[in-house]
Amino acid sequence: MNVIDLNCDLGEGFGIYTLGEDERLLDVISSANVACGFHGGDASTMHRVVAQCVERGVAIGAHPGLQDMQGFGRREMAIQPKEVYDLILYQIGALEAFVRTEGGGRLHHVKPHGALYNMAARDSELAQSIVQAIHCFDPQLYVYGLAGSELIRAARETGLPYVEEAFVDRGYRSNGMLLPRTEAGAVIDSAEKAVSQGVLLAKEHKVCAVDGTVLLLQAGTLCVHGDGKEAFQLLQLLRLRLKEAGVEIASPRS
Amino acid sequence: MNVIDLNCDLGEGFGIYTLGEDERLLDVISSANVACGFHGGDASTMHRVVAQCVERGVAIGAHPGLQDMQGFGRREMAIQPKEVYDLILYQIGALEAFVRTEGGGRLHHVKPHGALYNMAARDSELAQSIVQAIHCFDPQLYVYGLAGSELIRAARETGLPYVEEAFVDRGYRSNGMLLPRTEAGAVIDSAEKAVSQGVLLAKEHKVCAVDGTVLLLQAGTLCVHGDGKEAFQLLQLLRLRLKEAGVEIASPRS
Amino acid sequence: MNVIDLNCDLGEGFGIYTLGEDERLLDVISSANVACGFHGGDASTMHRVVAQCVERGVAIGAHPGLQDMQGFGRREMAIQPKEVYDLILYQIGALEAFVRTEGGGRLHHVKPHGALYNMAARDSELAQSIVQAIHCFDPQLYVYGLAGSELIRAARETGLPYVEEAFVDRGYRSNGMLLPRTEAGAVIDSAEKAVSQGVLLAKEHKVCAVDGTVLLLQAGTLCVHGDGKEAFQLLQLLRLRLKEAGVEIASPRS
Amino acid sequence: MNVIDLNCDLGEGFGIYTLGEDERLLDVISSANVACGFHGGDASTMHRVVAQCVERGVAIGAHPGLQDMQGFGRREMAIQPKEVYDLILYQIGALEAFVRTEGGGRLHHVKPHGALYNMAARDSELAQSIVQAIHCFDPQLYVYGLAGSELIRAARETGLPYVEEAFVDRGYRSNGMLLPRTEAGAVIDSAEKAVSQGVLLAKEHKVCAVDGTVLLLQAGTLCVHGDGKEAFQLLQLLRLRLKEAGVEIASPRS
Repeated sequence: MNVIDLNCDLGEGFGIYTLGEDERLLDVISSANVACGFHGGDASTMHRVVAQCVERGVAIGAHPGLQDMQGFGRREMAIQPKEVYDLILYQIGALEAFVRTEGGGRLHHVKPHGALYNMAARDSELAQSIVQAIHCFDPQLYVYGLAGSELIRAARETGLPYVEEAFVDRGYRSNGMLLPRTEAGAVIDSAEKAVSQGVLLAKEHKVCAVDGTVLLLQAGTLCVHGDGKEAFQLLQLLRLRLKEAGVEIASPRS
Repeated sequence: MNVIDLNCDLGEGFGIYTLGEDERLLDVISSANVACGFHGGDASTMHRVVAQCVERGVAIGAHPGLQDMQGFGRREMAIQPKEVYDLILYQIGALEAFVRTEGGGRLHHVKPHGALYNMAARDSELAQSIVQAIHCFDPQLYVYGLAGSELIRAARETGLPYVEEAFVDRGYRSNGMLLPRTEAGAVIDSAEKAVSQGVLLAKEHKVCAVDGTVLLLQAGTLCVHGDGKEAFQLLQLLRLRLKEAGVEIASPRS
Repeated sequence: MNVIDLNCDLGEGFGIYTLGEDERLLDVISSANVACGFHGGDASTMHRVVAQCVERGVAIGAHPGLQDMQGFGRREMAIQPKEVYDLILYQIGALEAFVRTEGGGRLHHVKPHGALYNMAARDSELAQSIVQAIHCFDPQLYVYGLAGSELIRAARETGLPYVEEAFVDRGYRSNGMLLPRTEAGAVIDSAEKAVSQGVLLAKEHKVCAVDGTVLLLQAGTLCVHGDGKEAFQLLQLLRLRLKEAGVEIASPRS
Repeated sequence: MNVIDLNCDLGEGFGIYTLGEDERLLDVISSANVACGFHGGDASTMHRVVAQCVERGVAIGAHPGLQDMQGFGRREMAIQPKEVYDLILYQIGALEAFVRTEGGGRLHHVKPHGALYNMAARDSELAQSIVQAIHCFDPQLYVYGLAGSELIRAARETGLPYVEEAFVDRGYRSNGMLLPRTEAGAVIDSAEKAVSQGVLLAKEHKVCAVDGTVLLLQAGTLCVHGDGKEAFQLLQLLRLRLKEAGVEIASPRS
């Protein structure tokens, strides 16, 4: 039987600012990537989201980003691998403090955010820094990264458990890379299309690129962007279709 | 035989900015309070200072502060105990990540910084929040706080190990409280006087208040402000005099 | 004939974060207080909101706050009057750059935000610093402050034009001060009640305190909190009732 | 007779953090580039440095940077020209508030900082955004930019006054570009060599590239990095040699 993980980025608001419907989404996903205060999130938001994850048995991941609230961690930045190692450790550690103290929780995975995610997909040196930081902190942590990326390769070579990620609501190139957000077709607006893409990925490990090519894409986790207003509905529909297709939803190792 | 701990606040620079002579001071103290990125410090500075502490066997403490780089965490702020709980956990966790990964290190204590230190000395509810965060994270961590303060009382009542702190280079009121920095006599400029105050504290558990009163003050650790240029010389002299007076220098439990 | 100004705090989102419905509100107010990047807002948001104000002829005011995005400038902070002078000038100057360059606009007023507003209402030294900064920058700028506050008194004594402010949706004490947000009755949830309070203030210069006392309160501007979802409806209703009561809506000097 | 301007970046500390010897340097330069709070500096530092410039008749320039205190504005960042327009205006406006209120001062020029300076040297679209912001704010402001750069070209095409800048203590490529800081020879450590380079630039409008080529380089201002400890001595020596060579030191238009 097929099994797939469903993940969302959560806890990305901070202070008075909110972003997405964190709590509702926790009922329809199996793993959460919690912002750690650099691109979004803050200590109190982390505390709250971690407690909600523990309550519902959702696997908790750290979602570290570049130090750029203004740009929401989406602006690529000339940063040294050594600095990246440090900011990954800092953010994982900060989140783990809440996971540890909210009885019963355990940090499950790490998924870099935004520009860091994209840079780590292409840049092997950066990817190695990230993987090394995670490995030093806890060698049982899963790395979530773009399927086929340098980040996944670095995790595999280091011996860290990893999960390859695919996107339900993003368009793919025929080489397996995501279309940049600036290009037409980068974001799939139709819930129906996104759900179909999700089922195809989970059931047959395939995705249909924007040029019509059908690619093999062996993803263990599917990402749905949590900041859209329709994320909850899309996830409900996706769960239904996955169930009909005989695909079980669960986080790795759970 | 008398034993005393000598501590300094370290790693309070960040990015291109430096503050104090972190590395030299590590040779003359027994425990370090490492800034955690809220009032000073950053991930890379924390990494470096932690590694240097491990190398020299200096006990590593977290030095969490208010989120106020502009005011260096010295401006009191109307903050809820619940928020303080969260920002303490966040900062301890972030530092512990470096302590854990720099082979052999273990987080030893927590000492709040600046305005948070002063607020926690007076405000029992705040003090309890801080102590609770530390206790949830690791009940073996020492709390460093002003001798006779609410923070020390909260640690005692919670069953956390604690160390009462006295200041070598600050003036005392006859009630055992520090003179605020805005009053004359608040900072002792003469190294000779500061050293004498330190030896009296370590050897006889006494301090001479600004009005001449001699107080009993049972301190287990002495703080020297590391940002002054004379901190290194003062500490060298203090070590010499403590040795002559038969006082051993060591961090608690070491 | 009576004339009243209606003001809202706007442009308080930043980066990816939004707060309130800035653009719609501009159609129903006569003056806007634009956040300046310290407690909320950023350069691009300021640019956009200023352009929208110029387009609609809404009077543009600076809304400077404490440097505290995390607390949205609502946490009182131990800050020196000299520092406040500087941060007021900095923020007014930053906003004025957009007002100047967006053809035709002219900075109209300054209204401190949140904790700074409250501190300036009580603390005469702080109030004088704020007024002095405004006066040095442009002696024709209006100061918006709590009716009967130290800020208004400082403006009057310095010879700056000022407008006393009352709140449509906040509860009053019998001494003319606002109930703190932590007390019951501090925020008036019923749109109907808020509108009645607004009309009474504009028409008869009176307000009914929480204990039933009727106070005289000579306000030239009424504030409606723009971050609530009902702000637009409340303002529409208020405009209707003010019109029925024969009260004209206009910013001072317009 | 030859005339040259000597400029330094100043006011780049903030809060408790200091950087360079701002005040001493003001005695040996003719124009100052004052940090505006994004990569360094803060409102109070800006106030102080502006007052000191006015006192000594040093021409005051804005030194706007990327919003990146952690990286001191030296990390290139994927930023839209539109955003750059906004952050330039914001920072110029903030500084101008202090120049305006410190009796007698007038903003003289704008020189982008660090990564923004380098990006604006290469990227014509970014350069145009910067120049447009300056032009909208005040068309009499001088633009300081790397000699031969896109920023200078954009200023020329827009009709803004500009001054081409050369570096006394940086190594040049044979194409007139600076060696990146990561390459050997990028920074000239010998004061004697730096001074000779300065005199050659001022007197004969030439510079000797690292490969020995002699380039023509028509610079109107020479930059000395103010954060080095030897900046003051270097500038004193440079002034002496320039005087001996018959070169007058003055800011443009003064």
